[in-house]
Amino acid sequence: MSFTHVVTFAWAQDSDAARDPAVVDGIAAALRAFVDEADLAGLRSWTCGRDAGLATGNADFAVVAVFDDVDAYTAYRDHPEHRRIIDEQIAHRVGGRSAVQFAG
Amino acid sequence: MSFTHVVTFAWAQDSDAARDPAVVDGIAAALRAFVDEADLAGLRSWTCGRDAGLATGNADFAVVAVFDDVDAYTAYRDHPEHRRIIDEQIAHRVGGRSAVQFAG
Repeated sequence: MSFTHVVTFAWAQDSDAARDPAVVDGIAAALRAFVDEADLAGLRSWTCGRDAGLATGNADFAVVAVFDDVDAYTAYRDHPEHRRIIDEQIAHRVGGRSAVQFAG
Repeated sequence: MSFTHVVTFAWAQDSDAARDPAVVDGIAAALRAFVDEADLAGLRSWTCGRDAGLATGNADFAVVAVFDDVDAYTAYRDHPEHRRIIDEQIAHRVGGRSAVQFAG
């Protein structure tokens, strides 16, 4: 049984991320570089992306990561580089966030 | 390039879904049966699950579905059985919902 982490972000309306897709692309690139370079044991798949605009009221950005188990997820969650990207590039830009981690 | 749909739900505090995991399991079972029986063209993967309780402030339930393309996603989104399950088993129980669909 795998373990899935899902998080969606709605950018704060006054944030540069809400105005400038390049800012969000920079966040995505930093996260992808981390995932590629950190050689995370137990990471099965990792994707992220900007909302495609198919529905009103959607959030703006999402990350989906699938792991072998909870331990592999928590190692990802607590990795210093993951924390750094969140602290430096994401946290101050977020208006709303919704996350679920589930077995499956 | 695949196309991913992510949705998280926080159940309304006064809803039976917030009190009774069996209600949520029933929703998950209905969704899984739909996905299994509808033979949806272009559906690559589909998972759902209840939050594992690893973080305060998480939502309660999530669905992650990956499709070949946008058209395969919209066929899933607009399928009558999918709409029925949402209308009859989910909508009236939802306190908060966050969705993103993205290329990837």
